[in-house]
Amino acid sequence: MNYQMIGYVISRILWTEAVLLLLPMLVAVIYGESTTPFLAAMAALVLAGLLFCRKPRQTALYARDGFAVVALAWVGMSLFGAIPFVVSGDIPHYINAVFETVSGFTTTGATILTEVESLTYSGLFWRSFTHWVGGMGVLVFVMAVLPMTDGHGMHLLRAEMPGPTVGKLVSRMSDTAKILYGIYLVMTLVEIVLLVLGGMPLFDACIHSFGSAGTGGFSCRNLSVGAYDNAYFDIVIGIFMLLFGVNFNLYYFLMIRRFREVFRSEELRAYLLIVTAAVLAIAWNIYQIYGSAATSLRHAFFQVSTIVTTTGYATADFNLWPSFSKTILVILMFMGACAGSTGGGIKVARFVILAKTSWGDMRKMLHPNAVVPIRFEGKPLTDRQVRSVHLFLTVYLIIFTFSALLISLERLDLVTTFTAVTSCMNNIGPGLEVVGPMGNFSQFSWASKILLSFDMLVGRLEVFPMLLLFAPSIWKRGPVRRHPAK
Amino acid sequence: MNYQMIGYVISRILWTEAVLLLLPMLVAVIYGESTTPFLAAMAALVLAGLLFCRKPRQTALYARDGFAVVALAWVGMSLFGAIPFVVSGDIPHYINAVFETVSGFTTTGATILTEVESLTYSGLFWRSFTHWVGGMGVLVFVMAVLPMTDGHGMHLLRAEMPGPTVGKLVSRMSDTAKILYGIYLVMTLVEIVLLVLGGMPLFDACIHSFGSAGTGGFSCRNLSVGAYDNAYFDIVIGIFMLLFGVNFNLYYFLMIRRFREVFRSEELRAYLLIVTAAVLAIAWNIYQIYGSAATSLRHAFFQVSTIVTTTGYATADFNLWPSFSKTILVILMFMGACAGSTGGGIKVARFVILAKTSWGDMRKMLHPNAVVPIRFEGKPLTDRQVRSVHLFLTVYLIIFTFSALLISLERLDLVTTFTAVTSCMNNIGPGLEVVGPMGNFSQFSWASKILLSFDMLVGRLEVFPMLLLFAPSIWKRGPVRRHPAK
Repeated sequence: MNYQMIGYVISRILWTEAVLLLLPMLVAVIYGESTTPFLAAMAALVLAGLLFCRKPRQTALYARDGFAVVALAWVGMSLFGAIPFVVSGDIPHYINAVFETVSGFTTTGATILTEVESLTYSGLFWRSFTHWVGGMGVLVFVMAVLPMTDGHGMHLLRAEMPGPTVGKLVSRMSDTAKILYGIYLVMTLVEIVLLVLGGMPLFDACIHSFGSAGTGGFSCRNLSVGAYDNAYFDIVIGIFMLLFGVNFNLYYFLMIRRFREVFRSEELRAYLLIVTAAVLAIAWNIYQIYGSAATSLRHAFFQVSTIVTTTGYATADFNLWPSFSKTILVILMFMGACAGSTGGGIKVARFVILAKTSWGDMRKMLHPNAVVPIRFEGKPLTDRQVRSVHLFLTVYLIIFTFSALLISLERLDLVTTFTAVTSCMNNIGPGLEVVGPMGNFSQFSWASKILLSFDMLVGRLEVFPMLLLFAPSIWKRGPVRRHPAK
Repeated sequence: MNYQMIGYVISRILWTEAVLLLLPMLVAVIYGESTTPFLAAMAALVLAGLLFCRKPRQTALYARDGFAVVALAWVGMSLFGAIPFVVSGDIPHYINAVFETVSGFTTTGATILTEVESLTYSGLFWRSFTHWVGGMGVLVFVMAVLPMTDGHGMHLLRAEMPGPTVGKLVSRMSDTAKILYGIYLVMTLVEIVLLVLGGMPLFDACIHSFGSAGTGGFSCRNLSVGAYDNAYFDIVIGIFMLLFGVNFNLYYFLMIRRFREVFRSEELRAYLLIVTAAVLAIAWNIYQIYGSAATSLRHAFFQVSTIVTTTGYATADFNLWPSFSKTILVILMFMGACAGSTGGGIKVARFVILAKTSWGDMRKMLHPNAVVPIRFEGKPLTDRQVRSVHLFLTVYLIIFTFSALLISLERLDLVTTFTAVTSCMNNIGPGLEVVGPMGNFSQFSWASKILLSFDMLVGRLEVFPMLLLFAPSIWKRGPVRRHPAK
């Protein structure tokens, strides 16, 4: 373990967070609110960063260092990011503030607030801005702006970017990060402009664009997007959530006119197919409630879009929908969006890989001597890739099971228990029953809130960084054996 | 596909079922009930068997033939086994009778009957006897009594016996089958004797011994084992359910005094550890309800034993227990008993393999060059074995998800929807809410009953035989290419 280098990277991340706090502080100035909450947090971040900012003698980072950096950075960012809420009095209790901040950075959108409209503007802004920062990833941001050698950056990018396969778009790591953040920024700005053109106040447009860009789901209204009851807003936000749930590599391919790669993407096709099927099935199922095909389609589309991308905005209380619609939504909760997007969940790519491998393996059962090559996105799938998808799913299910078991000690009903964990681990926000779209997480004990915060980080960082933090062997000093020290 | 040989084996199985019907017919004679229901079923079985009883010219059976035989045999046995219930009027509707028979043979124990005490004695006997027959497997029985070449029998045994690894105990297939059925018969007789010694009527003792031996769960009392409210019965049945949930190979090792293999069995140790932990956790959690440590332990022990072995008897309505206890029971429902036992579920062995491989794979993530050999039951695990466990789990989850989605169209609550499928796929019997230990499956539509019957067969035959029945390529004539025709 290269402690010095890990400390160095983390100090840069904490300082970056301090810089990012300037934006909500600007909002505080505009609305005439106190800037103390943000100054306090910035001071804490700068001081903490000074503790281990020393440039290390050797800069080698191995896979396990990458995991440790990412896990520690996200925990650290959340612990410091909670400070403004406590100081401003928006969320007086520190554990609650940490839950809310973790929920923000991990783009979950689960809240312990029973109502949000009494919060300060700057507090609401910071709360939603964490979605935008966490959506694409803080390390990706740091890599885009700080010089770092490629070999080391790759392990960080791999540990932070969601999906079974992470690759560089261009040969240089920092250029890849810049392209990703560029696309992300432009798309967010387009959404803000479209919402403002439709008549949404600029502040609200920023909040909801941050929330959909990061697929987070924090709103500045108690009734979420449903508060506006505006079909145009529903459609714009619904479509942008879906767009932010697509692998960003595809937008890069669009930019450089490699249209074939976009149209041929198996994950994109599966994603669009599933969304269409789910919208139609739910619209049919809820037609009896709304009595109009247009309204049913509008609500079905928005709710499918918000759940499949794991955003968590709501325009209807799907808690009151029939079991069939709720079951579809629960299935979509686990599925999630595309790999390499800002969305959470297990990811469509993993399910496509699982389905194709299972199909191939079953064919092999019937025809033991047949050679059944399995390809994904045009490339043959190696056994190692398949195994890592299986490993992900297994560990994911183990953590899910233990979390549900511990949360069940809260004595809430089973649907609340299971969907609270589902919602947090998949970074969605709402679940069903007590934690339904019109509910919140305020009822849980502080122990459960810490566990659910852990689950949110597990979901956002895709299990391993958080889990390996508990492996004693990760904390051994020095480089991994058999690797020459650089 | 060797149609002639498949027909030949199936005709033998149908005739075997006709012979097995003599036992409930004897019960009918003893209790002065009509023998017509059984004679009708026997006539139908003998005639159906005659249709394809011709000895085939070539007797080669490949893996896919094995799957087809097992799947078709179990479907056929259930369709014919339902006849006595319809003819006697115990269950007038044929679909209901098929559901009950599938539930019997697959040792699920889910019932569509709202009460059972008004049934004929012979009907009750046949209903529970199907558990005993289905527990160890019909093909294993046929193999024990009919001469069959070893090479062909192996594919049948593999397709019918539960667990990730199936081996022969002794070099000859038919001897293995005889040993297994011998142990099974002796243990069942011991349980009957112990129950009768405790004061249970012989008829009831047979019913409950068949139910625990096959880990089925049909009772002759509306309140299941709880009707007797007898601690001795609870303990005897509780312990025997656990014993029948152990891999039968271990009993053979005990017989031939290879004690070391028994004590070293990782699956057995995991099974006992999980049972103990679950009993203690639930007893602690329900202490407030029963107010006495002894009563809490007794109910916790019986319910854990009945659920982990997927039997489904009940002495307490765990539907009314706190969420923590219910969550533990739901987790145990999926886990199930040991491989090579009569119990259902995913099996402890698969979870031990998944846990050990995941642990190894994560260590490899931290130490990419480390050699991490993974062993199970003293032997190294091959990649192929691990892959087949992953395949099983993936396909299992896919079928579970689609079944839950279809059952959700019934408009029952989510807990009923999900636990009804959980209960049927894992061959347990009761679920929660509407299908809780004091509920039943009578509310479901005939379409759902057929789907749940399919799920029960999927669970009992461990997914692939039932699924591959739908693969077009399984129905091609002739042996698999590249295999020389024998």
